[in-house]
Amino acid sequence: MQQDRATRPGPAGRSLTSEPRELPAARWEGTRDDMTSHPIRFVLHDRIYAAQGEGTLLDLAALAGVSLPSLCGGRGKCAKCRCRPEGPITPATPLEAEMLSPEELAQGIRLGCQVRPLGAVAVRLQAESLDKGEAGELALQPEPGLRQAYLELPRPARHDDCADLERIEQGLGHSVKVALPVLQGLPTVLRQSDFRVTASLWAHDGSPELLAVEAGDRRGEAYGLAVDIGTTTVVGYLHDLLTGREIARASRLNGQQPWGADVLSRASHAMEAAGGLADLQRAIVETLNHIIAECTARIDPRHVYCVTVVGNSLMHHLALGLPPAPIAVSPYVPVARGPLTVRAAELGLALPNASAYFLPLIGAYVGADTLAVILATGLDESAEVGLAVDIGTNGEMALGSRERLLACSAPAGPAFEGAEIRFGMRATTGAIDRVRIRDDVRVWTIGDAPPCGICGSGLVDAVAQMVGSGLVDRGGRLLPRPQVEGRLSASLLERLVSRDGGWEFVLARDPYVAVTQEDVRKLQLAKATIECGVRILMEELGVEMPGVASVALAGAFGNFIDPRSALAIGLLPAELPRDRIRGVGNAAGQGARMALLSRTLRRRAEAVARRVEYFELSKHPRFEERFVDCLRLGE
Amino acid sequence: MQQDRATRPGPAGRSLTSEPRELPAARWEGTRDDMTSHPIRFVLHDRIYAAQGEGTLLDLAALAGVSLPSLCGGRGKCAKCRCRPEGPITPATPLEAEMLSPEELAQGIRLGCQVRPLGAVAVRLQAESLDKGEAGELALQPEPGLRQAYLELPRPARHDDCADLERIEQGLGHSVKVALPVLQGLPTVLRQSDFRVTASLWAHDGSPELLAVEAGDRRGEAYGLAVDIGTTTVVGYLHDLLTGREIARASRLNGQQPWGADVLSRASHAMEAAGGLADLQRAIVETLNHIIAECTARIDPRHVYCVTVVGNSLMHHLALGLPPAPIAVSPYVPVARGPLTVRAAELGLALPNASAYFLPLIGAYVGADTLAVILATGLDESAEVGLAVDIGTNGEMALGSRERLLACSAPAGPAFEGAEIRFGMRATTGAIDRVRIRDDVRVWTIGDAPPCGICGSGLVDAVAQMVGSGLVDRGGRLLPRPQVEGRLSASLLERLVSRDGGWEFVLARDPYVAVTQEDVRKLQLAKATIECGVRILMEELGVEMPGVASVALAGAFGNFIDPRSALAIGLLPAELPRDRIRGVGNAAGQGARMALLSRTLRRRAEAVARRVEYFELSKHPRFEERFVDCLRLGE
Repeated sequence: MQQDRATRPGPAGRSLTSEPRELPAARWEGTRDDMTSHPIRFVLHDRIYAAQGEGTLLDLAALAGVSLPSLCGGRGKCAKCRCRPEGPITPATPLEAEMLSPEELAQGIRLGCQVRPLGAVAVRLQAESLDKGEAGELALQPEPGLRQAYLELPRPARHDDCADLERIEQGLGHSVKVALPVLQGLPTVLRQSDFRVTASLWAHDGSPELLAVEAGDRRGEAYGLAVDIGTTTVVGYLHDLLTGREIARASRLNGQQPWGADVLSRASHAMEAAGGLADLQRAIVETLNHIIAECTARIDPRHVYCVTVVGNSLMHHLALGLPPAPIAVSPYVPVARGPLTVRAAELGLALPNASAYFLPLIGAYVGADTLAVILATGLDESAEVGLAVDIGTNGEMALGSRERLLACSAPAGPAFEGAEIRFGMRATTGAIDRVRIRDDVRVWTIGDAPPCGICGSGLVDAVAQMVGSGLVDRGGRLLPRPQVEGRLSASLLERLVSRDGGWEFVLARDPYVAVTQEDVRKLQLAKATIECGVRILMEELGVEMPGVASVALAGAFGNFIDPRSALAIGLLPAELPRDRIRGVGNAAGQGARMALLSRTLRRRAEAVARRVEYFELSKHPRFEERFVDCLRLGE
Repeated sequence: MQQDRATRPGPAGRSLTSEPRELPAARWEGTRDDMTSHPIRFVLHDRIYAAQGEGTLLDLAALAGVSLPSLCGGRGKCAKCRCRPEGPITPATPLEAEMLSPEELAQGIRLGCQVRPLGAVAVRLQAESLDKGEAGELALQPEPGLRQAYLELPRPARHDDCADLERIEQGLGHSVKVALPVLQGLPTVLRQSDFRVTASLWAHDGSPELLAVEAGDRRGEAYGLAVDIGTTTVVGYLHDLLTGREIARASRLNGQQPWGADVLSRASHAMEAAGGLADLQRAIVETLNHIIAECTARIDPRHVYCVTVVGNSLMHHLALGLPPAPIAVSPYVPVARGPLTVRAAELGLALPNASAYFLPLIGAYVGADTLAVILATGLDESAEVGLAVDIGTNGEMALGSRERLLACSAPAGPAFEGAEIRFGMRATTGAIDRVRIRDDVRVWTIGDAPPCGICGSGLVDAVAQMVGSGLVDRGGRLLPRPQVEGRLSASLLERLVSRDGGWEFVLARDPYVAVTQEDVRKLQLAKATIECGVRILMEELGVEMPGVASVALAGAFGNFIDPRSALAIGLLPAELPRDRIRGVGNAAGQGARMALLSRTLRRRAEAVARRVEYFELSKHPRFEERFVDCLRLGE
């Protein structure tokens, strides 16, 4: 029997999904990462896309949010991913010797799919390398609320003895708020610059805040950082605040991994261990400082004046050092839900002059990341009703329009992240991420590697195909071989095996990967939770399926899932037209960038946070009833 | 020849003047103090007056701002200073054995003028011990701007899942500003108290600031600390913010003494030594934390919600960690002159919930202490023109009324503090502080000790008497013995001696204390500076002497100087009626307390700071001309 393996081009940001909880070694990946993986920078024009992780340059490009050209999906067949990496890398493989000319090899040209970094590596990209779904300019006029004024102030003199701060205020023509560290540095910079300084001001209610006073005319050198703190991956986007242009981007595993892959393990550590909260805050601040260092490699970090932060409610609390117990323990409330502004330095971030703005949360389990998704998808301004869903351990979803917005969290469990699944793994090299079942089985893996497990989107695909082929009934029962004999091909029957008293369906034999009855049940429960959430949102809003004009699937999982399979198993209500579903990538990061560049959008986000009607799905009175209905795998 | 020594009751706060600069050992007193002197507490009703320094209980009471009853001035003759000190003290002297009954001695009753502490000592006072000039209630209705609300909040529940901070805001009925540390502590206190909490709010422009949330009903436990940071001595006054009542008071040498007794030595250290500014800030914060510990001995420091700080401009800058170079170097400007509010904890003060308000400065050399003196004396609201003068190394003076206020600094040099004077010393035990010259010389010393030097007020007295008796002419020349023979008594002539080619006048022979020609010249220059300042202020305001309705002498020196002598040598313009001069004690501390207890008075102080017309005396165009006129010692 032939086991086919095929690949498709590795989509960007694949590693954004979480690793499984049951693999203890993987928990330490955040730390191992620092020791064994190497930072890599892709440079396009003047922009930097940085990442740190494991894999080939092709994999790392995806992590960094760009993609090297590739037609063969990284199998070394198309030679489109030619590049000239600078820095220590693995030696040329026989495949490269075959695909590249001796002249190319002599010039250091290599195939991105074959090369792994052995230290810090930089790769210059061509314009077409940019992943359109992720990067590119934001179509908005920057008005971040930053004002810079170049002041040529009179020197203090016998008859002009006003104080340094008052001199600045006179130059500006208005009073300012100022934090003590800025005031402490003021006299030195004024005198070193002979009173020619640039004052950077941040718009606040009341007097603007004087963020920095720097020597000389520094207007035009003003940057901001938008940060999306994911439970697994943290991404930073550095933008020029004046032009709106993206300058650099960096991704990194969240350094809180040692305390668990999922939010609840981390909340437990913060609540139960002495110094636990401090551990977790320090870890995320260190991660952010690595990202800051990468993003500011070519600029002065003192010229970063604003940081916007989105993340789920727990990440928000841990980054701010707020105790997570109220979120983690029923009845689940945040410590603070509204927008918060603090000095970045107060959090320990290596941005001495920046103000850090945390977007508001929607609720204890629908965070600022979902708010950012609403902002990025424009759900709050849409005339038609739209749905935005971020599927993960906790499904977060919002439904509505400019009239009314509802949001809820659906505790799906870790099945969609490949965790607690017998052969589950996170969406990384070797994970089965696509399955087709006809007379036999065909699987695709990430990186075209031999299959070593199955990731969330692969599991959805596999179960949808198993239902379609009659291996699994609508009730979720994996049919024993005797019941399907005669109805299925011999190849498929051979893959139905009994083990430990239960049936499982073999996707790959060497290495062995199968889907068990238990796995189907777990997926069924997870999908029922999501579907139930969507249906209850619709009931609450009083809308039926034809009335939902668009479905935005945010996050990595949403980007990679096959909408047909999602509809087939009823992860999304099956009556939804497939063409209304679109993956919107890291829409949370996009929303953070929009809030960074526009004060109007920050205000809009705050207004949205106030008006979204939030509920905890599991507390909804019709939850149990609907949940049972939703357990069916498709119609 | 008989040398008489007499004493008068030791006035309160005598040790507030600086020690002389030329005694290197004394510079280290701030540090030695911690090792060899002991903290003492005087307790009156429930109030604590704490001090740490050297001397007898009688001396230390004066330092603490109270005075033990005494008729003999501490000579052990009147037995009025009977008290029962608790703690380790020196054993009873033969004088005490004589003055006290065996029963009294058996009960632990002692004479305050004979006892020195050997460790931490407490003394219970009678009501009449209170020094009226220093202590007592402030005659104002407290309205500090603190609001406390006791909230019995609903617990979070299934249908009431608003965030902790929003819950507080709902309970208060309005939004608040909140610093991160307060927010970080919020969930724990809410849950430990079952959502019964007291919120303490500080009035700001815009939303009030949530300073603290504490378990249970804590209304009524709200304190504030007013601090006067002197170059030599730091005094703290703890008040009940609701009743206005004084709860405790503590005095302590400024811990910056190791870096010089005067402001310029300290400014030099801050400007020139690596980490110099940090040294000085740390030292003053430590001093303040000692004062805080003394004042909060019977209350919880978490219930101190406000600190008001006054001090000269350098002390203000060093406490805030602001570089002093702009103040110390021409053209002498502060870094910030306006009022500043920071969290006390941000400065390192051991008051976790307090907001620290620094009163504004008037100019680089007329600080918030002078502003506080104006507030305390009511100069800014007076219909008649008044003068307030604080005489020290730098004379600070304000002249005016509710119509117009002028202020200037007069760099008198250290003569008034006994420094750079041949036998100069600070106003402590053994310092000659009063001199009368008739046919012979009679001197009084502090503590009736054998004379070991002369302090500032003693020098003013001595020179005034020497001028009056014809030993010194109006031009400041100490007349050689041949010129005065026949005109003066034999006793006086014997005291005119020639040494090292110059004449000096002997005040005491064993130990030897004399006033030299050089000393007279130094005093002459110092007094000319002060007089010149007063005269130029009067010229600028367009007022002549009968128009000055009152003269307030602030600070220790002003309290102890004999107004007749001050007028006799022309330290104050001689045409001033003596009965308009009054010592106002620590009026700076009084002003700090007023600002602590009243938001209206803080605003008044800010308005005064904006309207006072400030100038540097030495930069005034008529300074040199007037200064020469003022060199004459009286008319």
